[in-house]
Amino acid sequence: MIKNDLFLRAAKGEKVERVPIWLMRQAGRILPQYRALRNKLSGFKELVETPELACEVTLQPVDELGVDAAIIFSDILVIPEAMGLSYEMVEKKGPFFPKTVQTLEDVERLKIAEAQDIGYTLEAIKLTKKELNGRIPLIGFAGAPWTIFAYMIEGSGSKTFSKAKAKLYQNPELSHALLEKITQSTIVYLKGQIAAGADLVQVFDSWAGILTPTQYRTFAFPYIQKICDAIEEVPMTVFAKGAYFAREAVGQLDCAVVGVDWNMDIAKTRALVGANKTLQGNLDPCQLYAPTAEIKKATLDMLQQFGGQRHIANLGHGVYPDTPLDGVRCFIDTVQEWQVMSDV
Amino acid sequence: MIKNDLFLRAAKGEKVERVPIWLMRQAGRILPQYRALRNKLSGFKELVETPELACEVTLQPVDELGVDAAIIFSDILVIPEAMGLSYEMVEKKGPFFPKTVQTLEDVERLKIAEAQDIGYTLEAIKLTKKELNGRIPLIGFAGAPWTIFAYMIEGSGSKTFSKAKAKLYQNPELSHALLEKITQSTIVYLKGQIAAGADLVQVFDSWAGILTPTQYRTFAFPYIQKICDAIEEVPMTVFAKGAYFAREAVGQLDCAVVGVDWNMDIAKTRALVGANKTLQGNLDPCQLYAPTAEIKKATLDMLQQFGGQRHIANLGHGVYPDTPLDGVRCFIDTVQEWQVMSDV
Repeated sequence: MIKNDLFLRAAKGEKVERVPIWLMRQAGRILPQYRALRNKLSGFKELVETPELACEVTLQPVDELGVDAAIIFSDILVIPEAMGLSYEMVEKKGPFFPKTVQTLEDVERLKIAEAQDIGYTLEAIKLTKKELNGRIPLIGFAGAPWTIFAYMIEGSGSKTFSKAKAKLYQNPELSHALLEKITQSTIVYLKGQIAAGADLVQVFDSWAGILTPTQYRTFAFPYIQKICDAIEEVPMTVFAKGAYFAREAVGQLDCAVVGVDWNMDIAKTRALVGANKTLQGNLDPCQLYAPTAEIKKATLDMLQQFGGQRHIANLGHGVYPDTPLDGVRCFIDTVQEWQVMSDV
Repeated sequence: MIKNDLFLRAAKGEKVERVPIWLMRQAGRILPQYRALRNKLSGFKELVETPELACEVTLQPVDELGVDAAIIFSDILVIPEAMGLSYEMVEKKGPFFPKTVQTLEDVERLKIAEAQDIGYTLEAIKLTKKELNGRIPLIGFAGAPWTIFAYMIEGSGSKTFSKAKAKLYQNPELSHALLEKITQSTIVYLKGQIAAGADLVQVFDSWAGILTPTQYRTFAFPYIQKICDAIEEVPMTVFAKGAYFAREAVGQLDCAVVGVDWNMDIAKTRALVGANKTLQGNLDPCQLYAPTAEIKKATLDMLQQFGGQRHIANLGHGVYPDTPLDGVRCFIDTVQEWQVMSDV
């Protein structure tokens, strides 16, 4: 049904003739088409909440860059909004929550999201599936419970998320109650995305790396595990950025793919995660600022280290908005021209 | 000569009857005395550049908290300034360099710092040694070459330091030339601090954790190594924050103490660094927001994991400015009341 299904086959651990590639944040500011559209709109949320526009932006990198998977254009913060905690996206500053969660009563006032609360993204997925017409798979996504929790307590981005981390220490009861509600909402949302057509779902734990190993075990891992256990319909990817100390645990999750950031040594990560997962990553996003000859060299080196099978090529983090398109193209082309050197 | 020399004895690997403790950023906003003094001044740099004031602020946590070591109040960015690249400290925003380094000519225009260029800090050390009158040791410090480089290229703080990292990829020649000049300046500066009375010097590689393992090996490690090899007069501490992938390499450096951040598992870090270093750290700074019973429990757990010898207690990062003093005191008291359970 899907013409280029390399991404899904690699995710499931089936043998592939070449390594598939997509880029985190590929639908975004790196593309002039995106910037042109964005400049005509009132704000970022208009793009997220208008299915036709989200669909258009999702397809831009597919047409322009020839990636092997599309990822629906949305934002991880649609979940808090659907739970009753709305946010604003402040230009050049990032997300801002006028109200934050501070007490157990605040948690109790929040609802568990229903799929229809995020109907705009589900509609965008349906539209995109139709427009893709089976060319490549479509990825759905959500933030991991700890990362969503961090924004709901802190109220904005932060270098340290010290308020959110302090809450874990100060009020474990509140923390678990909120994490549980986020988890239930996320499961509903991901199942909605799958029903709408998502071929794989990825959970981004963007702030996993600032937790202590004990905090990760107590407040992050159990909730990701619940999500992994609940999602049986399609393969799932878990990307716990920076949580190098949790790689063995993440390898035990019931998910198909594990994200690898650029700090992580590839061979060590494989040893810790185990042989039964597909690894996704991990070129340094800054590598794409280099001259193309250097990008090519680094990409080939990465491909060889991953070994060709059970690998989905990507950056180790979202592509930075000012990355030159020539660098992005060189990365994608190098991966797509590289033939797996095994007897498939 | 020093009455309470626990810190120095632990640094050198000598047996101690109890674990010494100090806090990164102990001289700063956590103390009301500091905030009161700071509010009377024109700016942060006045404090750094006036020896009497730097001395006063250095002594505040010694008198107020009873820590086992003082650290001279200064800033890692005095080095770029001494090399000819001045910076401003913008209230609530952090450092800002009106001019940054972009070309090889920019590097060539910079000088190698002489001790007298940072005479104010050396003078502050002399004053502080006099005022301490042998009560506890005094720590000198500098930024690691990569971290200083990052600010000189980027021009300010950054979540990603993508401009600085891009420069490593785009222009290795410029990068090595600048790193070499920073290294030579840092050696001169640290030797000046030692001559002025510093009993140990610590090198902070605050941004080590955003490098790839290859970049760390190429652009960070060799320059720290040069500094370690050049400093023979007093013990040295290397704190490569976030560079978990480099712990084995850091263990090979000719330094006495290795800093450990709160992400790092203590037993694994000891195994990677080896038995011949003293480890310094590593309580999560956010732990100090918890109720004191929890702080005590976490501190005792940390002490037991480090095992009592070859350990200097500290946080895994600088103390956050809004940390309650009761939490800080509980941490310090718990360490100082804990008796090492071995036959010393």
